[in-house]
Amino acid sequence: MISWKNLNELEAYHALEKTAPVRLAEVMAGESGASRVRRYSVPMAGGLSYNYAAKAVDDDILDALAKLADEAQLTEKYEALYSGEMINTGEKRLVLHQLTRGQLGGAVLADGVDKRAFYREQQDKIAAFAEKVHAGEITNEAGEKFTTAVQIGIGGSDLGPRAMYLALENWAKANGTFKMEAKFISNVDPDDAAGVLRETDVAHAIFILVSKSGTTLETLTNESFVKDALKKAGLDPARHMIAVTSETSPLAKSDDYLAAFFMDDYIGGRYSSTSAVGGAVLSLAFGPEVFARFLEGAAAADRTAQEKDMLKNPAMLDAMIGVYERNILGYPSTAVLPYSQALSRFPAHLQQLDMESNGKSVNRFGEPVDYVTGPVIFGEPGTNGQHSFYQLLHQGKTIVPLQFIGFRSSQNGIDVDIQGSTSQQKLCANVAAQIVAFACGKQDENRNKHFDGGRPSSIIIGDVLDPAALGALLAHFENKVMFQGFVWNLNSFDQEGVQLGKVLAKRVLAHETDGALAVYSELLNI
Amino acid sequence: MISWKNLNELEAYHALEKTAPVRLAEVMAGESGASRVRRYSVPMAGGLSYNYAAKAVDDDILDALAKLADEAQLTEKYEALYSGEMINTGEKRLVLHQLTRGQLGGAVLADGVDKRAFYREQQDKIAAFAEKVHAGEITNEAGEKFTTAVQIGIGGSDLGPRAMYLALENWAKANGTFKMEAKFISNVDPDDAAGVLRETDVAHAIFILVSKSGTTLETLTNESFVKDALKKAGLDPARHMIAVTSETSPLAKSDDYLAAFFMDDYIGGRYSSTSAVGGAVLSLAFGPEVFARFLEGAAAADRTAQEKDMLKNPAMLDAMIGVYERNILGYPSTAVLPYSQALSRFPAHLQQLDMESNGKSVNRFGEPVDYVTGPVIFGEPGTNGQHSFYQLLHQGKTIVPLQFIGFRSSQNGIDVDIQGSTSQQKLCANVAAQIVAFACGKQDENRNKHFDGGRPSSIIIGDVLDPAALGALLAHFENKVMFQGFVWNLNSFDQEGVQLGKVLAKRVLAHETDGALAVYSELLNI
Repeated sequence: MISWKNLNELEAYHALEKTAPVRLAEVMAGESGASRVRRYSVPMAGGLSYNYAAKAVDDDILDALAKLADEAQLTEKYEALYSGEMINTGEKRLVLHQLTRGQLGGAVLADGVDKRAFYREQQDKIAAFAEKVHAGEITNEAGEKFTTAVQIGIGGSDLGPRAMYLALENWAKANGTFKMEAKFISNVDPDDAAGVLRETDVAHAIFILVSKSGTTLETLTNESFVKDALKKAGLDPARHMIAVTSETSPLAKSDDYLAAFFMDDYIGGRYSSTSAVGGAVLSLAFGPEVFARFLEGAAAADRTAQEKDMLKNPAMLDAMIGVYERNILGYPSTAVLPYSQALSRFPAHLQQLDMESNGKSVNRFGEPVDYVTGPVIFGEPGTNGQHSFYQLLHQGKTIVPLQFIGFRSSQNGIDVDIQGSTSQQKLCANVAAQIVAFACGKQDENRNKHFDGGRPSSIIIGDVLDPAALGALLAHFENKVMFQGFVWNLNSFDQEGVQLGKVLAKRVLAHETDGALAVYSELLNI
Repeated sequence: MISWKNLNELEAYHALEKTAPVRLAEVMAGESGASRVRRYSVPMAGGLSYNYAAKAVDDDILDALAKLADEAQLTEKYEALYSGEMINTGEKRLVLHQLTRGQLGGAVLADGVDKRAFYREQQDKIAAFAEKVHAGEITNEAGEKFTTAVQIGIGGSDLGPRAMYLALENWAKANGTFKMEAKFISNVDPDDAAGVLRETDVAHAIFILVSKSGTTLETLTNESFVKDALKKAGLDPARHMIAVTSETSPLAKSDDYLAAFFMDDYIGGRYSSTSAVGGAVLSLAFGPEVFARFLEGAAAADRTAQEKDMLKNPAMLDAMIGVYERNILGYPSTAVLPYSQALSRFPAHLQQLDMESNGKSVNRFGEPVDYVTGPVIFGEPGTNGQHSFYQLLHQGKTIVPLQFIGFRSSQNGIDVDIQGSTSQQKLCANVAAQIVAFACGKQDENRNKHFDGGRPSSIIIGDVLDPAALGALLAHFENKVMFQGFVWNLNSFDQEGVQLGKVLAKRVLAHETDGALAVYSELLNI
């Protein structure tokens, strides 16, 4: 029997509050540090591993966290979710993104269909469509092959798919599976669409319109923008556009599209990269085989997240350490620092995933909670960040927990050896060095050159960022955020906080304003 | 006589602590709100204005902040800085980035030369060089024009110039001043250079190697990477590369470059966009005239920052409100939210500028301070962010002050009218709506749909993002960060926090490790 309780109603939370804090700089020094790095590691899906040696935890704290995970019934709640219980209570929806990549429990029936079969069918339809595009069986009016895919979408229809595309672009080029370039239009700022279209050969471009509801203002506006451009180029928009939407949306049965692929209300935007939302663009860009391997990586991570033992469940462990840092240690933000240029937009995806899911003040019953919830998430790739905001991370007044990601090999395999090491070795040396610098610090009589240390981090390590590793990485964080939402007793799957701005913006456009809003509208010449 | 005191040694700070807080949701409602939006606005350089109506301040708090600015001698310290006093005491250097774009006080002599004349001379040399490249007088070995500029640099040699390039790319294309595309290689990750080079016609590319010291490991590594690629293409690297460095660096007198342009130790990396570091790439991309107008915008902002009256000095006002939010209200982070796709990387530049300058725990005398200093800075363009992390900003447990930026017109001037409004109007309507939604909130009996409001923001408004507006925007934030550093009694111009990681990384590459560092090195196959 599942019981939804606030964090501070759980006995194990109060036991956690009583645990003694870890002096990270001390335990990470010398042989103790070496032993921690060896011991505090857990395998992940996709050939990755999660190493938490440099987190401010010890066996006592981990034990208390495991008990808290247990009392919060994380495994049972996850099972309820993937088994099709109505977990998104605010919007009265199931939460089924895991089903887009695998079947974790029994069949889930909704809207009269087996949902796994439905998602699978969409994936197969996309695969067949993409293969026809690649084979030149689906072409532009002139019978010429499409060479570019342009996704039109915003939020989850943009950030995740864009981050995934960038993550695999060089891998696909180096591994002979690159099919066509992808671009993205998201912002309602007309300079976004105009800028992308200026650099796009629209006669050979296929546009992917992505909106679950079919009513997203930015996306419909950009669709018009693109249709205008196609018409001006003497092209038929209906021959250049496909839709990814829900079956009930106004876009679903329109003749305006070459094809339509479906998702549904049970896939939140920020959890939609493994649905048709990511599937169409990634299958067109890299081929359906690559997308299938990406899904396999995600599915494997979902299975790992079923493990009851927290120490063998990296997503649950990551989630619980995050709760400890947020609620016991009081840290307000977390930095995501991939030592991989391919992951340049992965932090922006995680920023949405985490902050939109758990940036909330009421529990799943709509009651205010009196503990802090999701942190601010930000980040940039290392080594770039080292030459930027790391100053504050090392010596600032606020401690920011860090999530490093590193790979033993590059995607391209092209490298140079200078000063006795390759670029890849330098990259890896830097991430290793940073972890230890943050944890251990350095004593110096000159206080300006002194480092307190005690700044916690974990690292996810892999061999190479390939489709399976990327899928596993994506699903790891989805599951981490889900587990944290369970601990905080939040509904991680709605986003009521974005509604008020939309309502007021409509009022401005209808010139139905007064007070401050009227004056701002005037100042902005609306 | 200037006196460098800690914030909590200032009487005005303790008076500020005693001011009554403002109930933002109340004062921003109705006529009071309208009146605030009209009153709480100050002109900036470049045709911009700074509106702080939605900040949690009132006349009493502003008065207390003005007294604090006065007691902290912000105007005098700024004057000392631009007059050539040694403000960067840690590194024993002058701080002269304002001189790259204007002469604010008397001549500054250092190293036996007039520094303004020196920076001007470099700008003129770059302008002449760029014009020859554009005219086809400086070409590749085959006598063909260069078509792409590729900047190789990291940190301040990358983030600022890249953000500025992206900010003006569409403007230049729409206004007929676009000369050549620019690309950027920064990360030591070999996939960064390999990815950029794969998409670059190296035979027609001119590479700009940017390193003040001439010893930046990432940049030298990427130089080797590029030279390798040029040689493999049968090209002479010395005919394809220019250097931006200091006169004393190993790069300065090398025959490896077509030309060398100079900056010096008095220009910090994060303050270097208006020096040769930004000048070379921006002059090549857009022409020297555009770069000159950008500098004029920055110079005008620097002059505005000389104003003693805080209420007429937007950089000082912005700085002081930020201090109030950080030290009195206790907010740990700030989001930068430009409603302009062209400013997509401007938050990343500000993240470096602010966090590397003021993310410190010791004062300029190396003594620990017992108050908080620089906040975490993050951000993405609106409207994209609205569909992402705004959920936490609206309804999260942590209040995040917001810096909006908006323009009345787009850069391209291409637009569509759907549902009765243009994209640009929708963009502006959204930013207006967000300010009011954050400030005023909305009562709702369903707590999940309830918004507390009271979330402070300011907005910088301009007509269009052109070179002068961009220069003013850049300098505004440089001066804001400088003023805050003065208030917190920090040295905002060194970055000792980045050193430890470098030292440890070298140790890893030399295989001189033990303890945790040795095991991490092993796990990462170094």
